[in-house]
Amino acid sequence: MPIFNPVDHPHQRYNPLTDEWVLVSPHRAKRPWQGQTEPPVHKEAIHHDPDCFLCAGNKRITGDINPDYQSTYVFNNDFAALLPDAPKYQHLDDPLFKIESVQGTCRVICFSPDHSKTLPELPVSSIQDIIKTWIEQLNELGKVYKWVQLFENKGAMMGCSNPHPHGQIWSGNFIPNEIRKEDTCQANYYKKHNSSLLMDYVRKELQLQERIVVETEFWVALVPYWAIWPFEILLLPKTIVHRLNELTSEQQADLAVILKTLTTKYDNLFNCSFPYSMGWHGAPFTDDPKEHWQLHAHFYPPLLRSASTKKFLVGFEMLAQAQRDITAEQAAERLRVLSNIHYKEV
Amino acid sequence: MPIFNPVDHPHQRYNPLTDEWVLVSPHRAKRPWQGQTEPPVHKEAIHHDPDCFLCAGNKRITGDINPDYQSTYVFNNDFAALLPDAPKYQHLDDPLFKIESVQGTCRVICFSPDHSKTLPELPVSSIQDIIKTWIEQLNELGKVYKWVQLFENKGAMMGCSNPHPHGQIWSGNFIPNEIRKEDTCQANYYKKHNSSLLMDYVRKELQLQERIVVETEFWVALVPYWAIWPFEILLLPKTIVHRLNELTSEQQADLAVILKTLTTKYDNLFNCSFPYSMGWHGAPFTDDPKEHWQLHAHFYPPLLRSASTKKFLVGFEMLAQAQRDITAEQAAERLRVLSNIHYKEV
Ligand SMILES: O=P(O)(O)O[C@H]1O[C@H](CO)[C@@H](O)[C@H](O)[C@H]1O
Ligand SMILES: O=P(O)(O)O[C@H]1O[C@H](CO)[C@@H](O)[C@H](O)[C@H]1O
Repeated sequence: MPIFNPVDHPHQRYNPLTDEWVLVSPHRAKRPWQGQTEPPVHKEAIHHDPDCFLCAGNKRITGDINPDYQSTYVFNNDFAALLPDAPKYQHLDDPLFKIESVQGTCRVICFSPDHSKTLPELPVSSIQDIIKTWIEQLNELGKVYKWVQLFENKGAMMGCSNPHPHGQIWSGNFIPNEIRKEDTCQANYYKKHNSSLLMDYVRKELQLQERIVVETEFWVALVPYWAIWPFEILLLPKTIVHRLNELTSEQQADLAVILKTLTTKYDNLFNCSFPYSMGWHGAPFTDDPKEHWQLHAHFYPPLLRSASTKKFLVGFEMLAQAQRDITAEQAAERLRVLSNIHYKEV
Repeated sequence: MPIFNPVDHPHQRYNPLTDEWVLVSPHRAKRPWQGQTEPPVHKEAIHHDPDCFLCAGNKRITGDINPDYQSTYVFNNDFAALLPDAPKYQHLDDPLFKIESVQGTCRVICFSPDHSKTLPELPVSSIQDIIKTWIEQLNELGKVYKWVQLFENKGAMMGCSNPHPHGQIWSGNFIPNEIRKEDTCQANYYKKHNSSLLMDYVRKELQLQERIVVETEFWVALVPYWAIWPFEILLLPKTIVHRLNELTSEQQADLAVILKTLTTKYDNLFNCSFPYSMGWHGAPFTDDPKEHWQLHAHFYPPLLRSASTKKFLVGFEMLAQAQRDITAEQAAERLRVLSNIHYKEV
């Protein structure tokens, strides 16, 4: 029998942040694809679209007029999934029919007045403005809510309904499932090892140099050992940071650089505006100890083989366990060797 | 302030099978959709396609020839994610880099020789043959593997790469994440209440009559209180059954009836071949006690508003918590009132 080799043989890897496993089937990447392909990722070239709800000066569906903004612009989501004054209710006695009302605030962040741009195409200074806006929002909403989820759905493939560069904030008075899992896992690790799970992890990854995609002075972007999505990325600071609003101005400036480099490599992988959902995780705004928490961003991109072929996480994945076709190391290598100059600028 | 009302106000509900919550934003269903729409669900009308790898008598990509089968036909997946003789390996000491090899068998089940049909369009007797095949496979693979996942990805939207009616089996020597969660939750409930979680649940649902879609002599299909997907279904027996291979022939015959009725209603919702991933969960094949396990099938369909508009579980859902736009009760009502006669037969 051949000796086990993770590049060729099926195995599973453990995600210590969520206590879940992922099935890796690297031998399966050779499988021909005859299923659904996605329409080409088309990005409009106009800088101002009179029909766009997010462009400066335009009227939104509610009748509100966007100001003539020059950098970022934040407003309350016109179709918010969470509302600040939703009526209160709780019924938690019946273990099979537990329900509780939630209150929250949902906002939209326009990243730039330029309708035609995406994150990698913006200058570093504009990305710094986005980071500043994220931090301001976190400071403001963290005073009211336990959890503030900053995220971006990029591309129609990721359910984004408007091509104008923008992100979202959904904040609420409850700790969402994913945060609860990460909180428990990081707390258990801290108790056992008296050190931070993700700090220990980033240190080892920097030694191993097998899954690193970009490294800057303060940050590292890598394909985590336990990645689910083909080109999933975990973006981590190299020093202890519990929340985004603790970043120094140097760390913020450097974050803008790594965000531009990473998203440029993403676009260069298949020469398209690379779709993904990304978002920030850090210590929740509760009175609980937060020393076990380490700030990080997840990038979950759906593409697998080309600009039009995505990975479907369906049947087995939904019912049993996530499965991937290329190894994390292969994905990291493919991204690492790509140019840091955006293909449109070459 | 208005009084809380689950039809109008944001809330979260608890899934006792997985210990996770779902955010419900019923007020958000009014949101206009300007994002990606899916190509029309097109189902070929030919009974035998000479280019199909699954049609009877055809040559597969491996060169193997399918027999001239008349009912169901099972073969080993030509691009299996799991392999029976994969080399063994384990490295579980480092909590941040845990890996273990897995062994397993993946198979394809052709549901019928007729290329043009889907589950709801097959006669009840053919659906009985599928159930018999599922049971045979479970008996055979359950002798070798801890977990046997029977499932169907229906429709290109669910990553299905061949329109020929078929399902899959992925079996392996490990307990997948979702099964582990359901096992823990059902075991804890059993310890605490000395009764089966899903039996208690089905009894209450039958009393409440708020989320039932179809009920037959032995079975009930309902939109669970904690559903994530807009028209998600939980299919349950009304008596204790730990695994699919324990069903009596009456229960099997009745299962064929409810499967036909449920999938017919699905197709009638938007007059299309309704896409979904479905699969069976029952007690794993280990030596652990199984009295807390109750057999059930999950149906996870992606469509929300029409044959071409799906629900995107992206940004907030991937990073924080699943979110739905219509209540489980609204979804159940919409499905319940639909005809049991397939729209193509009217
Ligand atoms: O095996 P298939 O039908 O080619 O592939 C489909 O189902 C698998 C199991 O759910 C998924 O891993 C694939 O992403 C999906 O495309
Ligand atoms: O708010 P949007 O961009 O209209 O909507 C998008 O993001 C939301 C948050 O991830 C999802 O719930 C929606 O399904 C998706 O289409």
